Amino acid sequence: MRRHNLSRLLRILHLGGPVSRADITRLTGLNRSTVGALTTDLARAGLVVERDPVGRGVGRPSIMVTPNEAGAFVLAFDLRVERTIAAVVLLGGGVASRREARHAEHDPDPDAVLGQLERLTAELLADAPPDAVCLGMGLAIPGVVRHSDGLVRFAPNMGWVDVPVAARLADRLPGHAITVGNDADMGAMAEHLRGVARGSQNVVFLAGQVGVGGGIILGGRLMVGAGGYGGEVGHMVVNPRGSRCRCGRRGCWETEIGEEAVVRALGGRPGDPVDALLAEVPSAAEAGPLAEVGRWLGVGIGNLVNVFNPDVVVCGGLLRKLLPLVADQVRRELEVALQAPREQVRLALPGMDRDAALIGAAESVFEALLDDPLGCVERIRAEAAA
Amino acid sequence: MRRHNLSRLLRILHLGGPVSRADITRLTGLNRSTVGALTTDLARAGLVVERDPVGRGVGRPSIMVTPNEAGAFVLAFDLRVERTIAAVVLLGGGVASRREARHAEHDPDPDAVLGQLERLTAELLADAPPDAVCLGMGLAIPGVVRHSDGLVRFAPNMGWVDVPVAARLADRLPGHAITVGNDADMGAMAEHLRGVARGSQNVVFLAGQVGVGGGIILGGRLMVGAGGYGGEVGHMVVNPRGSRCRCGRRGCWETEIGEEAVVRALGGRPGDPVDALLAEVPSAAEAGPLAEVGRWLGVGIGNLVNVFNPDVVVCGGLLRKLLPLVADQVRRELEVALQAPREQVRLALPGMDRDAALIGAAESVFEALLDDPLGCVERIRAEAAA
Repeated sequence: MRRHNLSRLLRILHLGGPVSRADITRLTGLNRSTVGALTTDLARAGLVVERDPVGRGVGRPSIMVTPNEAGAFVLAFDLRVERTIAAVVLLGGGVASRREARHAEHDPDPDAVLGQLERLTAELLADAPPDAVCLGMGLAIPGVVRHSDGLVRFAPNMGWVDVPVAARLADRLPGHAITVGNDADMGAMAEHLRGVARGSQNVVFLAGQVGVGGGIILGGRLMVGAGGYGGEVGHMVVNPRGSRCRCGRRGCWETEIGEEAVVRALGGRPGDPVDALLAEVPSAAEAGPLAEVGRWLGVGIGNLVNVFNPDVVVCGGLLRKLLPLVADQVRRELEVALQAPREQVRLALPGMDRDAALIGAAESVFEALLDDPLGCVERIRAEAAA
Repeated sequence: MRRHNLSRLLRILHLGGPVSRADITRLTGLNRSTVGALTTDLARAGLVVERDPVGRGVGRPSIMVTPNEAGAFVLAFDLRVERTIAAVVLLGGGVASRREARHAEHDPDPDAVLGQLERLTAELLADAPPDAVCLGMGLAIPGVVRHSDGLVRFAPNMGWVDVPVAARLADRLPGHAITVGNDADMGAMAEHLRGVARGSQNVVFLAGQVGVGGGIILGGRLMVGAGGYGGEVGHMVVNPRGSRCRCGRRGCWETEIGEEAVVRALGGRPGDPVDALLAEVPSAAEAGPLAEVGRWLGVGIGNLVNVFNPDVVVCGGLLRKLLPLVADQVRRELEVALQAPREQVRLALPGMDRDAALIGAAESVFEALLDDPLGCVERIRAEAAA
């Protein structure tokens, strides 16, 4: 029970920021002395800081409780097709130190990338708050990741098949808890916890640049599926007469709305930079050439609305730029989705720019701390001392 | 804790049948005296019967614990397009009394159907074990049902829009707990708990005759979505050049694999009885005319495998007869689904013939008993006495 209450309390602080003891009492329904005992426990473990409030209110001022940014952190990595973004993410969600490293080559060698992650880890650790607890490493990957052991089954745009990323990273960096997940799954969790889908329990998050990945939150929990491979919504066939997909099928959704389709629609050649081409489209009024892509975006979102009945569909990755240009076409296609689920859904752009996967990777590691704050800290301190 | 253990124990018995006290000890990890106290509590509440074992084993024979079929029951209804199936489903899952009533007309008037349900209820109650606790009514409906209050938003093949079935049934039959759900959702739960998907935590259950509905189990829980409308997999667009769907879109999956498509493929006219036409196809070797339907079945299942990463896809309803005839086409299409989820999935036919929705409707009501056995029985007995 105490563990459960500590967990609730630290979760509120980590996700919501500083709160007064009085507000904690109100939010949790716990009585004042229990709240005091809990925050004292968390403060002793270095996880929160308690301060007298600065302003003067009516009545006795309530002590402010703040997540201790100097108390615990995660090393977060967003492994992308062409580069890796890395950061120290502090308790409370702040991003303390941010680095990028480009891959030396297209279809990078896994060992080269693991070496890069090892170097980035050393740099990040040097930047991290001294005496803080390092909770572990979280890694978002643009591919299909086995949930049980962090094996990357298939990362088509990296050229990877069956790369045991979590295991190899554990060999190189012993002593760190390591979570490896699909980038869209990580992004979905970040938007659910801290972004535009906050408060929504049923979320479809779309991401990806070259392809289209999906992260699905249902009833507040990430959809994992039998092996962790769920959410590959880019590989729904929507146009059987369409073009061949990297996956081998014909007319997958991502062949109609992915980078190549957008480049083609805008008159570019395969390999032309899609972001630059999109940047030249000033507004939806000038987005005529994208109409067909927009229609396909709407057809696929309509499918997902009928299949998942989400509260919100978040268009991340390339779709973040695309959606505002083709919103009319999308709306028109959605108007013929089933009425009941259509009434409940809203379309949204990501709340955290392009950091969703990075933040989600961090949150996947924070979870162990939030689940059992004191136990987790004690365990890590004991291991460090051994 | 006691409630939790009573719940575990009754669930084992309800879903698994008679077990010896010794096996309960083994299955639950509880010690012998705790198990004895729990089974005694359940026996006093009329939920289990304890008997000395008949045979003679080595050592002291262990008392057999059996779910008490005469202790509690549910009134279950499978409302279909042309008729209603009704039954008393006993604790332990036995079907005690089974009735059918045809609707008087196509697109039946909701009040006529509610009257029919009321009459069936009176008949079932007369058949039910005397002194047993009636846990309530469970109703499976071929339509989109709002989870919060059992409002039928849309049942296209009944011609129903926004019919408050649960509320109106509660007016007619006060004092009964009432659960109303989508038939494919109910069927999915039944196959997960008692059928071919037993032990599988991630299940796609396909059902339907005229259309194609889906019930999805993820991580052992029914996918509900924001309003209870999730799982409408028949309304994924897979063939945008296909025919117009009842829902208003073009080329939904059910236009390619539903009753009309099968009738057309077999040379019948709209309205011809699909079951009779299918019965004339002796084997897969003679199922050439169904090849295209089979291909679409495979395309759609491939989409669902990529999106949900299920352990099993159960082909119920019309697909139960169709799948064996077109298994080759389906397999060929599945071979190009993503490798990782494809490796994990098996295709199956329902384990409970056409009773899945009926049994699932019953299980949706048993859930309250299984969650809190003694509390539920006490509550219902107190209400009956008041």
